[in-house]
Amino acid sequence: MKGDALAGAARLLGRRLEELGRVSDDRDGLTRTFHSPAMRRANALVGRWMRGAGLAVREDAVGNLIGRIEAGGRGAKTLLIGSHLDTVRDAGRFDGALGVLLPIAALGDLRRRGVDLPFAVEVLGFSEEEGVRFSSAYLGSKGYAGRLRAADLKLRDAKGISVRQVLGIRAAPGPAHRARSLLGYVEVHIEQGPVLESRGLATGVVSAIAGQTRARLLWRGRAGHAGTTPMAMRRDALAGAAEFVLAAEAFARSHSPLVATTGAIAALPGAANVIPGEVVLSLDVRHPRDTGRRAALARLLALARGIASRRGLGLDWRQTQDDGAVACSTDLTALLARSVRAVQGRCPELTSGAGHDAVVISNLAPVAMLFVRCRGGLSHHPAEHVSPRDRETALRVVVDFIEGLSATHERRI
Amino acid sequence: MKGDALAGAARLLGRRLEELGRVSDDRDGLTRTFHSPAMRRANALVGRWMRGAGLAVREDAVGNLIGRIEAGGRGAKTLLIGSHLDTVRDAGRFDGALGVLLPIAALGDLRRRGVDLPFAVEVLGFSEEEGVRFSSAYLGSKGYAGRLRAADLKLRDAKGISVRQVLGIRAAPGPAHRARSLLGYVEVHIEQGPVLESRGLATGVVSAIAGQTRARLLWRGRAGHAGTTPMAMRRDALAGAAEFVLAAEAFARSHSPLVATTGAIAALPGAANVIPGEVVLSLDVRHPRDTGRRAALARLLALARGIASRRGLGLDWRQTQDDGAVACSTDLTALLARSVRAVQGRCPELTSGAGHDAVVISNLAPVAMLFVRCRGGLSHHPAEHVSPRDRETALRVVVDFIEGLSATHERRI
Repeated sequence: MKGDALAGAARLLGRRLEELGRVSDDRDGLTRTFHSPAMRRANALVGRWMRGAGLAVREDAVGNLIGRIEAGGRGAKTLLIGSHLDTVRDAGRFDGALGVLLPIAALGDLRRRGVDLPFAVEVLGFSEEEGVRFSSAYLGSKGYAGRLRAADLKLRDAKGISVRQVLGIRAAPGPAHRARSLLGYVEVHIEQGPVLESRGLATGVVSAIAGQTRARLLWRGRAGHAGTTPMAMRRDALAGAAEFVLAAEAFARSHSPLVATTGAIAALPGAANVIPGEVVLSLDVRHPRDTGRRAALARLLALARGIASRRGLGLDWRQTQDDGAVACSTDLTALLARSVRAVQGRCPELTSGAGHDAVVISNLAPVAMLFVRCRGGLSHHPAEHVSPRDRETALRVVVDFIEGLSATHERRI
Repeated sequence: MKGDALAGAARLLGRRLEELGRVSDDRDGLTRTFHSPAMRRANALVGRWMRGAGLAVREDAVGNLIGRIEAGGRGAKTLLIGSHLDTVRDAGRFDGALGVLLPIAALGDLRRRGVDLPFAVEVLGFSEEEGVRFSSAYLGSKGYAGRLRAADLKLRDAKGISVRQVLGIRAAPGPAHRARSLLGYVEVHIEQGPVLESRGLATGVVSAIAGQTRARLLWRGRAGHAGTTPMAMRRDALAGAAEFVLAAEAFARSHSPLVATTGAIAALPGAANVIPGEVVLSLDVRHPRDTGRRAALARLLALARGIASRRGLGLDWRQTQDDGAVACSTDLTALLARSVRAVQGRCPELTSGAGHDAVVISNLAPVAMLFVRCRGGLSHHPAEHVSPRDRETALRVVVDFIEGLSATHERRI
């Protein structure tokens, strides 16, 4: 009967994702930002579902929704499992929400079956991950992990309101737990990419979350009349930038799992009849290993300098962001992979190119992530979709994982 | 004493260019647009200088300033010589103005020396060439040549005022002359390019004005997350466009005197962390021969299609402009080149990549053009500059040319 009950739980999960997807600050699409009215309604709604699954519910100082089930008695450790409840603008209803509602469904199932756990579980609905309101991501998980800095509290939104004002606090809160009291943090999230779909699998585990470096490349040539400047006398900034776009693409293609993206480009003066004198190009480089990312950056910088020098162009390379890679816990991930294999036969191991709350929580506890296939790899879009069958598969994996962790834990004791 | 008098005339020309350069609609920079208050002041000022050189002055129905010197008696033909008095926004003071003020200085010199010409001369200051006010170029020379169309009269400026309203006319005027009454049209203009400077020469003749085709290329790929989409699964519209930028550059480099320019580019969505799903690219292709331009366009289109097909991208190629090349008159140009050689020793022959009033007047009369070196090839910019020495060289060339044409003309009679 476990199978049938879980199928029902998966259907309920689907209805809840739909209901939560209607809780929005916008009339037309789904948008929920840090401490907005919709976020307060979302916390109230998800809090009710947490209570229904037997969790004790509270909100912390930064608005994270925390549902806790005590188990294992005095001195028992805590398993964290969750994701974020905020969204990008005009979002889909799975990014974040799936990782909060799915563990509630899993704990509901365990409770229904009277499963006794030897550890406490906290389901976390982080209040901020997408960085929409304050152009700074992870405010929720940073608050939970005690990683908010004074500078974060001073951030202001488009209306000039600061994080400090929004939260009504004077100092950043400390971590929610001592590290040694935690078993780990598990996050279920849509893949936001096409790998699982291309392999025909519903779920996979994440071995590492890629480090990420962003740079802004300014190419300086000489603007000139498109009709009167012979080809041989040109210093075309766009041609130089184009050469780099292709060089970065070719380099990343031959250095998998490296990804390099030039997503934004602007040419000045930007008229059809003027040779571009200046081009600004963005570069985003990610690799699951820091050594791989750093080696790639050094090579890309050398390539850019070579192009600029050969073409007589000026080049200004400014790094605007640099985040190290986060390795997932080998133990937790092995256990999670065992559950994936038990449920769907094979278990692919992916690296996450996108950042997640797990990046921040890795400062507090070992982390593991379960990726769930999303249609067409699409995310951050109203058409974002996870099939009912895949949701059920993911739910079965998480239930099996919690029971598996429970068995391991008991063996250890 | 001819030499000394011309040196003085060249200095006066310099002062007049400076004075005319202060006649502007803007307080900060030089801007004169079709029938603006500054254009009326410019016509009045230049008209005074024309009268001073012995010309009879009038304005035609479209505001062209015409200074005419009768000579050669009844049935004598007319030599046209001029350029435009309007400017781009924030212009330099030589583009157009040099070609109007220089022939006034030349005719002043001929008059001072009592030279009798066997033909009439009209110095033309066209009222519109740059296309600023009505986003349509050559309104002045089109009016003079009888080439304005009903559609031109309906054009409206940013305030909704039509050309017809500005001119207060009901129908487009006919041509100012019957073609058989004209000896030709000669235009002195800054090169707007770096060729004369690179050869260390003050002036050169123009063999042809390049034809010009513009197109808008829309590259359609698939937007995707920069972190989660492996390189092998991307359809990056910017990478395709970059490949074309380089292909067009390489093709034009190996097919001189072809020039091909991709001056404007926009990537959508244009975020650092999103693979561009759509890129719009401008293409501007010019060649002094129509066959050369057409062959290049066919090849570039084939290259673009090959790139798009290889990368799985959509391509939409839309032609937005297509103007044929204009060949300068062999006879007039040979005579002009003889004068250039007489004054500066050598005479380079250039093609004009930019359009000029001569393009329109070629419908009415054989045309020739004298290009004058401008510093750094720079034009359409406040720093546009022609040295006093080069102005004097150009003036000597034009005086020699008019006397040469006069001699040829008398020999023919």
